[in-house]
Amino acid sequence: MTQRVAIIGAGPCGLAQLNAFEQAREAGADVPELVCFEKQDDWGGLWNYSWRTGLDEHGEPVHGSMYRYLWSNGPKEALEFADYPFEEHFGGPIPSFPPREVLADYIFGRAEKRDVRRHIRFSTAVRWVERSADGKGFSITVEDLTTREKTTETFDHVIVAIGHFSVPNVPEFPGFDRFPGRILHSHDFRDAVEFENQRLLVVGSSYSAEDIALQCRKYGSGPVTISYRTAAMGFDWPEGMEEVPLLKGMDGKTAHFVDGSTREIDAIVLCTGYQHQFPFMADTLKLRTANRLYPADLYKGVFWLEDPDLMYLGMQDQYYTFTMFDTEAWVARDYVLGRLALPDRSERATDIALWQQREERLDGAFDDIDFQADHIADLASMTDYPAFDIDLTRDIFKAWEHHKDANILTYRDRAGFTSPCTGTASPAHHTDWWVALDDSMATYVGERAPASRTG
Amino acid sequence: MTQRVAIIGAGPCGLAQLNAFEQAREAGADVPELVCFEKQDDWGGLWNYSWRTGLDEHGEPVHGSMYRYLWSNGPKEALEFADYPFEEHFGGPIPSFPPREVLADYIFGRAEKRDVRRHIRFSTAVRWVERSADGKGFSITVEDLTTREKTTETFDHVIVAIGHFSVPNVPEFPGFDRFPGRILHSHDFRDAVEFENQRLLVVGSSYSAEDIALQCRKYGSGPVTISYRTAAMGFDWPEGMEEVPLLKGMDGKTAHFVDGSTREIDAIVLCTGYQHQFPFMADTLKLRTANRLYPADLYKGVFWLEDPDLMYLGMQDQYYTFTMFDTEAWVARDYVLGRLALPDRSERATDIALWQQREERLDGAFDDIDFQADHIADLASMTDYPAFDIDLTRDIFKAWEHHKDANILTYRDRAGFTSPCTGTASPAHHTDWWVALDDSMATYVGERAPASRTG
Ligand SMILES: Cc1cc2nc3c(=O)[nH]c(=O)nc-3n(C[C@H](O)[C@H](O)[C@H](O)COP(=O)(O)OP(=O)(O)OC[C@H]3O[C@@H](n4cnc5c(N)ncnc54)[C@H](O)[C@@H]3O)c2cc1C
Ligand SMILES: Cc1cc2nc3c(=O)[nH]c(=O)nc-3n(C[C@H](O)[C@H](O)[C@H](O)COP(=O)(O)OP(=O)(O)OC[C@H]3O[C@@H](n4cnc5c(N)ncnc54)[C@H](O)[C@@H]3O)c2cc1C
Ligand SMILES: NC(=O)c1ccc[n+]([C@@H]2O[C@H](COP(=O)([O-])OP(=O)(O)OC[C@H]3O[C@@H](n4cnc5c(N)ncnc54)[C@H](OP(=O)(O)O)[C@@H]3O)[C@@H](O)[C@H]2O)c1
Ligand SMILES: NC(=O)c1ccc[n+]([C@@H]2O[C@H](COP(=O)([O-])OP(=O)(O)OC[C@H]3O[C@@H](n4cnc5c(N)ncnc54)[C@H](OP(=O)(O)O)[C@@H]3O)[C@@H](O)[C@H]2O)c1
Repeated sequence: MTQRVAIIGAGPCGLAQLNAFEQAREAGADVPELVCFEKQDDWGGLWNYSWRTGLDEHGEPVHGSMYRYLWSNGPKEALEFADYPFEEHFGGPIPSFPPREVLADYIFGRAEKRDVRRHIRFSTAVRWVERSADGKGFSITVEDLTTREKTTETFDHVIVAIGHFSVPNVPEFPGFDRFPGRILHSHDFRDAVEFENQRLLVVGSSYSAEDIALQCRKYGSGPVTISYRTAAMGFDWPEGMEEVPLLKGMDGKTAHFVDGSTREIDAIVLCTGYQHQFPFMADTLKLRTANRLYPADLYKGVFWLEDPDLMYLGMQDQYYTFTMFDTEAWVARDYVLGRLALPDRSERATDIALWQQREERLDGAFDDIDFQADHIADLASMTDYPAFDIDLTRDIFKAWEHHKDANILTYRDRAGFTSPCTGTASPAHHTDWWVALDDSMATYVGERAPASRTG
Repeated sequence: MTQRVAIIGAGPCGLAQLNAFEQAREAGADVPELVCFEKQDDWGGLWNYSWRTGLDEHGEPVHGSMYRYLWSNGPKEALEFADYPFEEHFGGPIPSFPPREVLADYIFGRAEKRDVRRHIRFSTAVRWVERSADGKGFSITVEDLTTREKTTETFDHVIVAIGHFSVPNVPEFPGFDRFPGRILHSHDFRDAVEFENQRLLVVGSSYSAEDIALQCRKYGSGPVTISYRTAAMGFDWPEGMEEVPLLKGMDGKTAHFVDGSTREIDAIVLCTGYQHQFPFMADTLKLRTANRLYPADLYKGVFWLEDPDLMYLGMQDQYYTFTMFDTEAWVARDYVLGRLALPDRSERATDIALWQQREERLDGAFDDIDFQADHIADLASMTDYPAFDIDLTRDIFKAWEHHKDANILTYRDRAGFTSPCTGTASPAHHTDWWVALDDSMATYVGERAPASRTG
């Protein structure tokens, strides 16, 4: 009988997995039946922007955490698909920090090129995954959100690719129940102009806090106070922005911080991260992890320790994104195709333990970058993912860290990053990020936009 | 073996069910084991106010749809518990349209009096309900949200009491994806002051639209435009408020309506109702209905046609609330206790059909009120629910409709409604609703507040 592979989610990871299989098929491989379940009505995962928040038209939690005016926070050269360079998609070089619509177009371009859409069942939510009663393979129950019908099918392999930036971590602080204003998590943040002239409190000190705080100020908010728990980001913030220690609580509109200082606040954005949640996985198959570089129980960051026929993609905290997803997907594919033999359980466990021991010793962002680059290199060495200059990407990320420290407002204006795939250096963007209010693809890439997708 | 009864939800309906059983126990009945599963960490359902929106601390959809400054929109005399009059709780008469905190306190008061908390497993979400494999009773899988452990137990009876005003119906209109402002459903509405000075568009023409539109204006919003699909509410709106036909779409901040008119808008509140959703019920046990006075497949509005051991409470569209929940709960209890024999399936089906035929012929609010009063009287005739003057409540509701038509701003200031339980007439409130910005219990009932719950 033909093998059957279930892929859960058609975001960048799920699409990377489908692409990897199609690439093998083009090269003559005998590919099993692929079924990708996607609860949204289109592909792209977080990149499929939605104005919706809370629950969607089917009463399902909205997956999207993306917002308008979001630009890449890392240089695109460090996330390039080695089998589909930016230049191929855009017909020439583009600058290094594209806005959301441009990056999304790039992701969709590769998916269209290999016509992976035919494998995807849209508007279909996975409700339950367990081992089949006969011990062989997996039983998956899905719900068609349009007809509301549930069906159960069996698969030989399951690849979970649902991301981990969709279920918010929402702490409560004293006084929230009586705060006379809006409190939201970054997951529900959509449009900075909603906060025009408002005095904003942003809680958190990672990427979302940094970007949402800056963006609100850029689009006309009042003063922005950023409150950190562990450590300040420490950037040289522009006028009207500052970092303070952790919030103690709200008393009406007055925010009290643990250093005794206070600020008057109109709205609060909790940029307090996300939870890895897999409510549809049977307990014995469920990944339990915080947001870290090497989650437990995943051999090579991909294979479920107890049963490698179950795989998870993209579950790491992310410096690298698409490049890492691709190498993970390529390795998963090779295992499914029988090209890759895995060591036994105890060797797998030891390998995970070694990576995690190294992770514990990491000291700062540069170490993190090297660690994740090594993870990717490790994966690339196991498969035939097209060659690209991974060491160059380490340097790119480190330069980027320096640029951010030097000036948080201008790091996205930098040019001259070299593509690890084509060797071309990126041009400068025509407008500085801090004053570029229009983030449309038409404005960003101008005549470089693929004709079929603009307008 | 002792019979086991599962009650899903500890909102007003679930609490009414527990209270009904405890009342029987006090009167000497042999009561089965009761287990009430409640996903929140406290009782009260919608009345357990939360500042949260979207997903909660466990990543579960927030149940609450209630908001600050909400006052009863119907006179309290039409929702009084016959076994626990308002005067018993507050030690004397109080006015007829209490704010949320006051009504909540009344609900909780009865629940405390009969100590029903001991039956409730809090922070426990029901995940799956199906018939037991042996055909006897039901198998229920629940998840403890704190430990994240799932367990399965069997029950002889299941009573579903999860409400139907928590899963929003969220339509999309053209231009929503580019509207530069906030779009939310009434489910996520929490505090009118968030809309201070904003030009508001409210979509819908039922209770939420009416109340949220008025409230926002009361607390300082800019002009409010209310857009209806089927029919305008037609009240004599105060200055700065108006009703217009259905929204066609947004073009930037400009709202276009089907009559060709336009308005400039800063924020949009979709008061477009809710969905009856029971994702945890096996397909053959799942109620499928719109928001109507007599849902299909429920004999006497309570018993699942195919198997009366499964019951649903409060699934009707609601003029009457607590009074209806109580009579439903009393009848459900009597069936479980073996005191009430039900006719066979075909007779049950005929009875439902007759009620639904009558429902189809209803013409306007007065008919609706009589229909629902008759439903309650029908239930009351089947059990020993304490006597109260149901005909008086019909008159009360009809007077209330007249008061609303006469003046939408002052109907909550009316006094002199007679309690159908005690015969006492309600006093006037000390402050007109339109200018009463403080909705706290302390301010509302003053020295009437039960000492243990104020302050
Ligand atoms: C605000 C924000 C900004 C970001 N910006 C960048 C950036 O600029 N550059 C960058 O490289 N990365 C960025 N990221 C990182 C992001 O994680 C990746 O770019 C990428 O989207 C992850 O892909 P994924 O496929 O793992 O998950 P997702 O993109 O989350 O896709 C998962 C898919 O699974 C589906 N799904 C979920 N549950 C089910 C179910 N039960 N049944 C069926 N389908 C299901 C979802 O609908 C979704 O389509 C950002 C993340 C966030 C939160
Ligand atoms: C905005 C608003 C205002 C209202 N104002 C009034 C008013 O002024 N007066 C009035 O009489 N009525 C009012 N109502 C009507 C309201 O329906 C009732 O007052 C009442 O709350 C309904 O009670 P319930 O028990 O059926 O449902 P709910 O109050 O919704 O309670 C259901 C309970 O079930 C729990 N639950 C849900 N799913 C699960 C699960 N899977 N597992 C475990 N537990 C679960 C929930 O957490 C919740 O506690 C209002 C409704 C809304 C939406
Ligand atoms: N393209 C872009 O510009 C962009 C924008 C936003 C996000 N993103 C991406 O989105 C992903 C998620 O980033 P994220 O910032 O949302 O999550 P994150 O990186 O996991 O950071 C979570 C933050 O929340 C803080 N936090 C958690 N619980 C807290 C509590 N109880 N009180 C106070 N602070 C608390 C943490 O502080 P501690 O350090 O104290 O633990 C940390 O600063 C990343 O991959 C990022 O690249 C990209
Ligand atoms: N205490 C209070 O003051 C208070 C306040 C708010 C709510 N409540 C309670 O909350 C419950 C729910 O009330 P509700 O008003 O939220 O829901 P509802 O009574 O079910 O009304 C839903 C409304 O949405 C409209 N609608 C649905 N889909 C639409 C679409 N696609 N486009 C335009 N309009 C659309 C409907 O219009 P059509 O008529 O065209 O179908 C209807 O007006 C009630 O029990 C109410 O008593 C109480």
